[in-house]
Amino acid sequence: MYGRYTQELGVYAKEEAARLRESGQRRSGDRSRTLDLLEYDKGRCAKCRICTVRCQKFLISRVGEDWIFLILLGLLMALVSWVVDFCIAICLQAQKWMYGGLDSNVFLQYLAWVTYPVVLITFSAGFTQILAPQAVGSGIPEMKTILRGVVLKEYLTFKTFVAKVIGLTCALGSGMPLGKEGPFVHIASLCAALLSKFMSLFGGIYENESRNIEMLAAACAVGVGCCFAAPIGGVLFSIEVTSTFFAVRNYWRGFFAATFSAFIFRVLAVWNRDEETITALFKTRFRLDFPFDLQELPAFAVIGIASGFGGALFVYLNRLIVQFIRKQKAINRFLMKKRLLYPALVTLLISTLTFPPGFGQFMAGKLTQKESLVTLLDNRTWAKQGIAEDFDYIGHSQAWKHPQLNVFVTLVLFIVMKFWMSALATTIPVPCGAFMPVFVIGAAFGRLVGESMAAWFPDGIHTDGTIYPIVPGGYAVVGAAALSGAVTHTVSTAVIVFELTGQISHILPVMIAVILANAVAQSLQPSLYDSIIRIKKLPYLPELGWGHHEKYNIRVEDIMVRDVRYITLNCCYRDLHNVLLTGHLKTLALVESAESMILLGSIERAQLQSLLSQQLGRPKRLEYIRERAAAEKKRLSVVSIPGSEDGGQRASQEVRFQVRGRCRWMGTPGSLYTAEAFLSSSFFCLHIFSDSQNLCDLQIAEWEEKQLDEQVNFNNCKIDPAPFQLVERTSLHKTHTIFSLLGLDHAYVTSIGRLIGVVSLKELRKAIEGSVTVKGVKVRPPLASFRDSGTSSSENEATELHKLWDRHKSMSLPREHTPSESDEKSQ
Amino acid sequence: MYGRYTQELGVYAKEEAARLRESGQRRSGDRSRTLDLLEYDKGRCAKCRICTVRCQKFLISRVGEDWIFLILLGLLMALVSWVVDFCIAICLQAQKWMYGGLDSNVFLQYLAWVTYPVVLITFSAGFTQILAPQAVGSGIPEMKTILRGVVLKEYLTFKTFVAKVIGLTCALGSGMPLGKEGPFVHIASLCAALLSKFMSLFGGIYENESRNIEMLAAACAVGVGCCFAAPIGGVLFSIEVTSTFFAVRNYWRGFFAATFSAFIFRVLAVWNRDEETITALFKTRFRLDFPFDLQELPAFAVIGIASGFGGALFVYLNRLIVQFIRKQKAINRFLMKKRLLYPALVTLLISTLTFPPGFGQFMAGKLTQKESLVTLLDNRTWAKQGIAEDFDYIGHSQAWKHPQLNVFVTLVLFIVMKFWMSALATTIPVPCGAFMPVFVIGAAFGRLVGESMAAWFPDGIHTDGTIYPIVPGGYAVVGAAALSGAVTHTVSTAVIVFELTGQISHILPVMIAVILANAVAQSLQPSLYDSIIRIKKLPYLPELGWGHHEKYNIRVEDIMVRDVRYITLNCCYRDLHNVLLTGHLKTLALVESAESMILLGSIERAQLQSLLSQQLGRPKRLEYIRERAAAEKKRLSVVSIPGSEDGGQRASQEVRFQVRGRCRWMGTPGSLYTAEAFLSSSFFCLHIFSDSQNLCDLQIAEWEEKQLDEQVNFNNCKIDPAPFQLVERTSLHKTHTIFSLLGLDHAYVTSIGRLIGVVSLKELRKAIEGSVTVKGVKVRPPLASFRDSGTSSSENEATELHKLWDRHKSMSLPREHTPSESDEKSQ
Repeated sequence: MYGRYTQELGVYAKEEAARLRESGQRRSGDRSRTLDLLEYDKGRCAKCRICTVRCQKFLISRVGEDWIFLILLGLLMALVSWVVDFCIAICLQAQKWMYGGLDSNVFLQYLAWVTYPVVLITFSAGFTQILAPQAVGSGIPEMKTILRGVVLKEYLTFKTFVAKVIGLTCALGSGMPLGKEGPFVHIASLCAALLSKFMSLFGGIYENESRNIEMLAAACAVGVGCCFAAPIGGVLFSIEVTSTFFAVRNYWRGFFAATFSAFIFRVLAVWNRDEETITALFKTRFRLDFPFDLQELPAFAVIGIASGFGGALFVYLNRLIVQFIRKQKAINRFLMKKRLLYPALVTLLISTLTFPPGFGQFMAGKLTQKESLVTLLDNRTWAKQGIAEDFDYIGHSQAWKHPQLNVFVTLVLFIVMKFWMSALATTIPVPCGAFMPVFVIGAAFGRLVGESMAAWFPDGIHTDGTIYPIVPGGYAVVGAAALSGAVTHTVSTAVIVFELTGQISHILPVMIAVILANAVAQSLQPSLYDSIIRIKKLPYLPELGWGHHEKYNIRVEDIMVRDVRYITLNCCYRDLHNVLLTGHLKTLALVESAESMILLGSIERAQLQSLLSQQLGRPKRLEYIRERAAAEKKRLSVVSIPGSEDGGQRASQEVRFQVRGRCRWMGTPGSLYTAEAFLSSSFFCLHIFSDSQNLCDLQIAEWEEKQLDEQVNFNNCKIDPAPFQLVERTSLHKTHTIFSLLGLDHAYVTSIGRLIGVVSLKELRKAIEGSVTVKGVKVRPPLASFRDSGTSSSENEATELHKLWDRHKSMSLPREHTPSESDEKSQ
Repeated sequence: MYGRYTQELGVYAKEEAARLRESGQRRSGDRSRTLDLLEYDKGRCAKCRICTVRCQKFLISRVGEDWIFLILLGLLMALVSWVVDFCIAICLQAQKWMYGGLDSNVFLQYLAWVTYPVVLITFSAGFTQILAPQAVGSGIPEMKTILRGVVLKEYLTFKTFVAKVIGLTCALGSGMPLGKEGPFVHIASLCAALLSKFMSLFGGIYENESRNIEMLAAACAVGVGCCFAAPIGGVLFSIEVTSTFFAVRNYWRGFFAATFSAFIFRVLAVWNRDEETITALFKTRFRLDFPFDLQELPAFAVIGIASGFGGALFVYLNRLIVQFIRKQKAINRFLMKKRLLYPALVTLLISTLTFPPGFGQFMAGKLTQKESLVTLLDNRTWAKQGIAEDFDYIGHSQAWKHPQLNVFVTLVLFIVMKFWMSALATTIPVPCGAFMPVFVIGAAFGRLVGESMAAWFPDGIHTDGTIYPIVPGGYAVVGAAALSGAVTHTVSTAVIVFELTGQISHILPVMIAVILANAVAQSLQPSLYDSIIRIKKLPYLPELGWGHHEKYNIRVEDIMVRDVRYITLNCCYRDLHNVLLTGHLKTLALVESAESMILLGSIERAQLQSLLSQQLGRPKRLEYIRERAAAEKKRLSVVSIPGSEDGGQRASQEVRFQVRGRCRWMGTPGSLYTAEAFLSSSFFCLHIFSDSQNLCDLQIAEWEEKQLDEQVNFNNCKIDPAPFQLVERTSLHKTHTIFSLLGLDHAYVTSIGRLIGVVSLKELRKAIEGSVTVKGVKVRPPLASFRDSGTSSSENEATELHKLWDRHKSMSLPREHTPSESDEKSQ
């Protein structure tokens, strides 16, 4: 009997598969039959119609192909990106126009300068809050979690898409130091999810979960790719930022979609007559023959190291602001009530400070993000030994020139102000990223170093005759890559920089700076995205640190939970009830018996709850009552044969009464289906029953007890027949790898089939954070102390194993000579 | 008793760990004690010595860090790469000098032109053959296999390193169309392995297996990176070529080491006064403001598609040549005898054809690979409407000009000749790669298309006033990336191209062409490396194809082997013997009992063989003989108490005789340790025994039978307590993922703890190749027919499961009411 459920499940699944297959065949059969019929049809447009049907058939069969999906996704995202950019440009132009038109009155100018972003940001925050609060923030941390296999609710819906796109456009249109690249990763994933849902109307393949995750990974690449028109950097950045283990077979998907998307994005610009042909977004024109001198490399290394510290500081500052606002309960309560006040206040502060006739004049506040970047990457030198006459500061570069101040002071002010402004602005609850602001700050820092170098060595460092002056723009490129790499903990910002500038001549300085920045930043702080993951407490596994040897020495046995909740194959419903009441794990282990502890599978909590509610639920109760009524009737009919009419009436009365009683006794039907609620309510009901029902109650209690004592029937219960198993000696390093590879939530620790422990994400996270944060020179890993206790417990294990083997011995054929002989041998 | 071995193993492991830990502490304790002692020492240089010891301690503790290892690796590889390049350049110069010096006599010139490469290639082939045959070929296929977890013997030794470096230098110095990039991946891995071995003298961390694999992955990146001075492209190329799943946490390792290596490699060139500063290897100077017109994109797409076909053809041709030579037994036998004849013949043929005054004049045969690439990437146009006067063909470009022939004809001849030459040359058994020759052919093809376009549109395509002439050099870049991408099935050749040329302006055309080339090539042929893997029959899992839906429909139950070889916990040695004789699997499943089939673990074949040989081996036999002798003695002493001296003599005689007999009976001691050899020899020995020993033989046979009937004692036998388990419904897609993620060799298929099948690499490979090669529109996956039979067999499974549950029922407390009730419920 116990075996039936597996058979039934297996048979059911097979029948289901066969049914599906047949229906598929039938459907295709139907189609071909219509085709045949059409061919016999002698109408005028028969041929036409045959052709149409064939084309349709062909198209539908092709829709399932990946590349169609990727092309559609790329196209869609390029359009979205272009439209968003277009709207942002219009918004910014409008602000400039307002500001420029009111130049007669400074106060009106200020009002216009400040009101515009406040209104936009407030609208963006309010709109997102109302439509879909999930659209707030960057989106990369959430995508990282989703790609790990965690399901975040409401995160990939159409509502979120609308909220994110409109919210982002407004937020960026305000001119705040915010970026579009994180949100675009989210938007691309939303597009992919919606497109996938849409395409599943045509073919069944879109419903496959692992395929969806592959497509989401490609979508992340598209998001970055079409945002910067950087297909290669986009793919690499998205891999670094969202994946732990990357399937190389998905590589082409990302490249394909991102290239197509970047291509369309740039073609739109050409068609719109913005550009003559497809070139880089922030094209630079550094000289190619001698991009930099070898002796400049130390300066580039300094940029890298300083950017590393700066990046860590940025992440820390960002987290500090969030935590400060959360901790200050008074502020928090006030802000919670007036949710739009915080964005408005922050925007007011930032835009006041950047007001060009005010403080903004000292920090090039007039320039938008894009304009500042273009000027910073300029290949001319701004400061030439104090004499600036040969540099005419045309166009936007004029903003950097201040009659009273040096360019250096402007740059330092720009860096310092933008630094905290960006850290503050990214905490506003609107859809926004931090990549672009950080990128600009990095470029400014690089420019600062570059200008200093140019001032220090006006004729360049090279001493062999030819004068190659220093190019501060190259330093800006290096600084931008280094700082953004440090904040996001990625190396691929280097590639993004090359694609953005269209020049790869500074590859070595950029790579050196980015690697140094990463080395410094990674040893000080988590990446910005990991920091947000921690703040938001998303279920994610932290990375193993660099070169921490402990991870090889910690074993699963040091971190596992030994007290595993399990159910046995022959347990009764009472055990089930007790286990469900005490533990909180999502899944429970199924073992052969409490003595052998051989792991057979794992069952989800919900499944067990439904088993329990089936056993004690409404239908069972009804059945029992009906049975009892029938028995009563029988008894009555036996007793009152003479007055059968009267007896019949009494019986029916009793049944009616029972039915009335039942209604109260069972509580509301909805609550019956969760076992705990049911259990408490049913026991509760027993007490509040009216006295007249006492006998009946006792019977019911008795019935319940009897039901609970029955052995559990695992029919119709989904069992995971092969949960993931580890060995007690598996190292933390390997456990981490397996967990992140397979996206596990928990794994059982077994020893020769016997369940001895369980490791869940929680234990693993604790262990890693323990080993990562403690940095002293330790000979013993922090958790190794458990191992000594493990030795003693292993004896217990061994005695328990003895039982298992002894049980075996008794089951096997009696060979009394064996143990003694093997004893002798082992001696 | 049965439980003991687990306890013992566990306890042993723990004691071992404790011992290691203690010894580590003691060692560090020793060190600090010397330090303390030194501090109390009042000598003159005591402080100095303290300082030295401290520094030494610090350095040794740092040696374990990854970054030191990576820096050393990068440095070493840069030096190797530079020295190899230097030697190759000298070799090529020598050839040119010889050829140039003999210009009086064409025949002597020919002799010099031909003899030089023949001697070099023959030496290279002979040297490699003698020192380390593993050094032959590219090395990337083997590294791919090693990174998957397969151990290839003798593949990472110092001998191989020497053979590879010297062989490669000679092979490339000959001027044959061979590349250095594949071998450099291998050389870098060799360096990493040797360095790791060397560094393990300082710290124990280098012995960790998973760390070694991480370092090998980084080494592959270094190999490509320092070969092309392309750190980013190197990392990406090595990932694409060697990994299936890539751990993003290893990313920085690759970047770090490859950047450092590329930096040193280029700095060496600067120090050697070859270059003024660090720039790209094959620097191009295309115009930046208008790199290409949008309307040129179709031409780039055509290059991509044609390169896809070309790449597939190259792989096919290469395989065809190898297979042809293998199949022609007469040739094969002859070549096997004279191993150096084949390389010599091929070299003779190729160098004859490239002889500049001969056929070489029509195909720029004078130029080395590097020179041709430089000329092909030239940013001037060669053919301007037939009038070539404004292009003066200076320097090497002169080789492309022929008085009678058009440039187009020269290019076509170059492409066609080099194509088959490269395919042929890469089959020579010397260390060589195919990337660079393919790259040059691709560049030539791109140049051809570019020149044609330039001839067709002499004033460029752009119609809006400004004339932007077409840049054929840009087409060459695109062609090079596309063809090498098609042959290797990688997208990252695009990045390599940018790093090699130092210009990224053609990013979109390159990406489009590379992706199209990949799409075409991947649907026609495996990559060159996969093709070599198949030819060499290395243990590797093929990739799942693009968008084949079947992979989601095939289940493990369709492909698994149902007849699993297993041993039970209570089996006797005879069963062990039988199982070992029949099967050939490397590991055997250990189940609880044949009835329950609950999987407990897996044991390696070698372990079982040693168990068996322990049971029937020499020490046991000696012991038995001694015992028997003692018993005999006792018997004799009981029988012959009166003549005890005589009896003692007889006994000792008998023992001596036995000992003499034993020597023959046991065969050579070496053969005893493999069980099969032992078994056959022992049974054989029983028959050839002399007649006088018959009684003794019978006793021995009896003893052997008794030994075989004993129950197996699993003490001291290493059991894998948690082998990987799958469920019967796992899809092929997921199985493939898990196998390649975890580098599995086989996995057991279980259902609620019960073993029902096994899947090994072989089955998986068959299934994938079945589903990948068959391309028809199938509603049923090719293997689904098994599923119907699976349904019937599942009933058998179910009945077997019944037994398991029944057994349980009988073991649990007797509750006779339960089965009937549950029967009622389920009805």
